[in-house]
Amino acid sequence: MGKLYILGISGSLRAGSFNRMALSLAGELMPENMVLEVEEWREFPIYDEDTQASGIPPAVQTFADRVRHSDAVLFATPEYNFSLPGGLKNAIDWVSRIDSQPFAEKPVALLSASAGPLGGARVQYDLRRVMMSLNAMMMGRPEVFIGSAQTKFDLGGGCCTDDATRGFVAAQMVAFERWIRYVKAGQR
Amino acid sequence: MGKLYILGISGSLRAGSFNRMALSLAGELMPENMVLEVEEWREFPIYDEDTQASGIPPAVQTFADRVRHSDAVLFATPEYNFSLPGGLKNAIDWVSRIDSQPFAEKPVALLSASAGPLGGARVQYDLRRVMMSLNAMMMGRPEVFIGSAQTKFDLGGGCCTDDATRGFVAAQMVAFERWIRYVKAGQR
Amino acid sequence: MGKLYILGISGSLRAGSFNRMALSLAGELMPENMVLEVEEWREFPIYDEDTQASGIPPAVQTFADRVRHSDAVLFATPEYNFSLPGGLKNAIDWVSRIDSQPFAEKPVALLSASAGPLGGARVQYDLRRVMMSLNAMMMGRPEVFIGSAQTKFDLGGGCCTDDATRGFVAAQMVAFERWIRYVKAGQR
Amino acid sequence: MGKLYILGISGSLRAGSFNRMALSLAGELMPENMVLEVEEWREFPIYDEDTQASGIPPAVQTFADRVRHSDAVLFATPEYNFSLPGGLKNAIDWVSRIDSQPFAEKPVALLSASAGPLGGARVQYDLRRVMMSLNAMMMGRPEVFIGSAQTKFDLGGGCCTDDATRGFVAAQMVAFERWIRYVKAGQR
Repeated sequence: MGKLYILGISGSLRAGSFNRMALSLAGELMPENMVLEVEEWREFPIYDEDTQASGIPPAVQTFADRVRHSDAVLFATPEYNFSLPGGLKNAIDWVSRIDSQPFAEKPVALLSASAGPLGGARVQYDLRRVMMSLNAMMMGRPEVFIGSAQTKFDLGGGCCTDDATRGFVAAQMVAFERWIRYVKAGQR
Repeated sequence: MGKLYILGISGSLRAGSFNRMALSLAGELMPENMVLEVEEWREFPIYDEDTQASGIPPAVQTFADRVRHSDAVLFATPEYNFSLPGGLKNAIDWVSRIDSQPFAEKPVALLSASAGPLGGARVQYDLRRVMMSLNAMMMGRPEVFIGSAQTKFDLGGGCCTDDATRGFVAAQMVAFERWIRYVKAGQR
Repeated sequence: MGKLYILGISGSLRAGSFNRMALSLAGELMPENMVLEVEEWREFPIYDEDTQASGIPPAVQTFADRVRHSDAVLFATPEYNFSLPGGLKNAIDWVSRIDSQPFAEKPVALLSASAGPLGGARVQYDLRRVMMSLNAMMMGRPEVFIGSAQTKFDLGGGCCTDDATRGFVAAQMVAFERWIRYVKAGQR
Repeated sequence: MGKLYILGISGSLRAGSFNRMALSLAGELMPENMVLEVEEWREFPIYDEDTQASGIPPAVQTFADRVRHSDAVLFATPEYNFSLPGGLKNAIDWVSRIDSQPFAEKPVALLSASAGPLGGARVQYDLRRVMMSLNAMMMGRPEVFIGSAQTKFDLGGGCCTDDATRGFVAAQMVAFERWIRYVKAGQR
């Protein structure tokens, strides 16, 4: 079985983000033929169709190309005001406007981490609906919600110190590998 | 009864936006003691908690102050990829971080317009949930969905040429005035 | 201030339901001028418009009358398969068909309890949307999610043994009383 | 390619239901190697875990067996009060409690019809979430919403008289066949 290149997308920009830590954790615990690379959307402008009329911004094009060339996409996102971070949604909105938009048919999984107890229980279904609108192949269960994240990660190094969380994420990554194989088998 | 100042927020930035036209239409058809002023979020940066740490950007502060000093807020928003435009959500995310965030207890109504047939049927419930998270006082029914908007507005001048749409929006604005009075009476 | 009669509705029929326990807990912790009475929908048939054509079933009519004569409604519901229990939704569907359906303008609050960790985080927004469709006056925050309910209630007597949960429910009931007063003041 | 047996499930019980008509239409327009059989849940009791403790009711067991032995499931459902009909959700809740519940890994598609203009735009995402919770393999796009259904079906015979609707449903059934093949290929 060949290597699977997974593009990791954090819903939060801040340096000490729990979702960045969650992405790193997923990368650490992935089956060994999976490789995670994290991509940034920090330089995206706010979407405006009038801006688009003068061309897709280079940062968007680069990001979209990386989505296209990945085997799968993994989102780790916080929940802002009970829904998607606007910045992450703005990134998806831009990418969705690319010709032959690259989320179509792409295997996608998601996890979420938050300081609150629910761990992002509301945001995941919004991201699922958005990805469905783009014809992505969204993995269903197992879901991973990392609540009270500040008690589960070493805030200095970003390492996950909670065995239960490590177990959930490892199990999700095993399922994700299977999901990617499944989607590719169907597409053949 | 005194004047009611309504802050109008468009979910779309483009100049020829149907939702800007819908806001204008609402302003035109409001009961005469209501006054609409449209506010822009074009200059907001993408939200990043690390950016916030060095202060609320001036454009955000100005916008938040205008929300605070309004009697009510009216959103008109398109649906992007089955949810909120990322840019609009980013604007709300910023405003939500202001001390004593100004959407709390504020009467809010929404309408949506789109070129597709559903007129934004999915996005409205996401915006309702987001506003609920901020303790806004969201008006319930009547809902207004302006589908196939390109057939209902004069694309040059932006005027609404569809009598049914004019009737729905006028009725919603009458209900909105009653809603604002209701909320203020409760708050007394 | 007069007594407020609160109609409690459990989303679960089973005798040992955590949501019945949560309703009892809410009744126990309510401000003393609030009185809780729990109403059952066990005898409702499955909704069928052809059945309705031969008359509203007596159990539905009785239930609807009790909603109408209450000052407010409090739901406590589990989450079944990530949404509302079908039986509870069926009860609401029936009541919604009554002439001048009685949820309109009624102050409503909800809480949810489950054995899983999220405590019903998905079901609450579905119930909010359903109640919004019926013009109910849904209280926003504070939300109450009782996760891992089996660790928080004495399974024999049904008493809540978890101080944090008791505190959350008590605070919600204080807010609910204020909400009911607020809605009534607006309606005057 | 062998025959594909599709189990059709209507969300409405009434004899003259638009969603029954929509199911028939889908059966009429399916690629010829697909066969539709409609299954009823009329005899299901309201779900109660205490009832379940004395055994799965025969009507539920029969229904679940038919789901299990089908190649795929097609839902056609109205929207009641902005969400799933309680009766349909109750049927799914019962089936979900069967050992090795039969929706797991099953290809599923849905369409919705209503007398209102939106055609069920809110209910579809609730059903998608519910099916996701059961590990069903839900087809994404194309979506079919049949709004103003009373203008699109011959109310006597139940035939669809609207060419656009016929085209949308036919296209969805072609996509559904492809989706079923895709899922089965992945499962091999």
